[in-house]
Amino acid sequence: MDAKAMFSFSYGLYVVSANDGENVGACLINTALQVTGDPLQVAITLNKQNHTTQVVKAAEHFTLTVVSKTADMPFIGRFGFKSSADVDKFEGITTKTSLLFDPYTPEHACAMVCCAVVNTIDLGTHVMFIGEVCDAERVSDEEPMTYAYYHSVLKGKTPPKASSYIEGEDPTKPVVPVSAPKHHFRCNICGYVYETTDEELPADFRCPVCGVGPENFTKID
Amino acid sequence: MDAKAMFSFSYGLYVVSANDGENVGACLINTALQVTGDPLQVAITLNKQNHTTQVVKAAEHFTLTVVSKTADMPFIGRFGFKSSADVDKFEGITTKTSLLFDPYTPEHACAMVCCAVVNTIDLGTHVMFIGEVCDAERVSDEEPMTYAYYHSVLKGKTPPKASSYIEGEDPTKPVVPVSAPKHHFRCNICGYVYETTDEELPADFRCPVCGVGPENFTKID
Repeated sequence: MDAKAMFSFSYGLYVVSANDGENVGACLINTALQVTGDPLQVAITLNKQNHTTQVVKAAEHFTLTVVSKTADMPFIGRFGFKSSADVDKFEGITTKTSLLFDPYTPEHACAMVCCAVVNTIDLGTHVMFIGEVCDAERVSDEEPMTYAYYHSVLKGKTPPKASSYIEGEDPTKPVVPVSAPKHHFRCNICGYVYETTDEELPADFRCPVCGVGPENFTKID
Repeated sequence: MDAKAMFSFSYGLYVVSANDGENVGACLINTALQVTGDPLQVAITLNKQNHTTQVVKAAEHFTLTVVSKTADMPFIGRFGFKSSADVDKFEGITTKTSLLFDPYTPEHACAMVCCAVVNTIDLGTHVMFIGEVCDAERVSDEEPMTYAYYHSVLKGKTPPKASSYIEGEDPTKPVVPVSAPKHHFRCNICGYVYETTDEELPADFRCPVCGVGPENFTKID
């Protein structure tokens, strides 16, 4: 069996957010899909360890935004590589409120879909929420970001808590700059590449995307 | 509410096939995704009216192939616009048998994944099968076909039984040939465009992709 076969599955990239009245959760996923047209229903899967999962469970609703190709690694890092338990992911960006009071950002978004949870399915490490769409809106005409684009162009990595994570395997190709007078360090956690003239990263260096220290960086040239 | 917001969701294209010992079913879907990494589990959704759905239910296993960009409309039509109850979809193409005895074709495929059904979820018009992966193999290095590519390049349509069908709406752009000395007729069912010097289609004309007659074609120039 070759688990790498799973790398040819195609996905989009989405932000799931929810507000249960006490807590706000938001995170990045690639596993969202329309499952029926009448009624309009959407399925999403979330890792049970995610703070957002507990907030969606308590709120019984969530809002999904379709991430556009305009999103950069700091935006991806904000929603994908940090925990809502530690930081306010909507701080410093335009924030709107959906019909069911979930916060969401129209920045780097193609569309938003607001859903009421109608079914919850235990998948072991993950949980699937089936949501009935209560509101939907096109936010921009930008092209949706696909997971393949995220891997190939942004050089992003699959975090261990993602549905499509396979241990020891990553579809990310190594970054090989064409002409590099400077040194490049690649974050092992989120894939961010830092360029510097220094031979080593300083001890107090922190990844601008996911926040880890220099011990999590690999020098790639 | 603008249901067209759902058009920005990204999908791949997959063939689901199963053999329950008495019947063989195979059909094209866009709703397949990995839902957990350990154990490796995959979710698919199928319309209850599909013959393949009954075969998967009876077999309690299915095989999924990831369709590659090399697939043409006749291949798409074979699996997407006909019923396994009427035709043998594997006739005339290379056919292999998976670990759980489902037929599948390595033609126009990137990968195959063979799954045992571990959970069945009723979604109303559709049913979701959660399968645990028993075998997986990379079949070719071709690029996976995305649903966006199918719509934009192959000019394919979303059949009414698909999860992502929205009544009266279709993300397909009309086909406008740059220079057309001939006449073009577009199939309302599958989107196939037929080129001819005739002003009208003969009464015995049948769509080479989905098999419908001239009453289902619209002259587009």
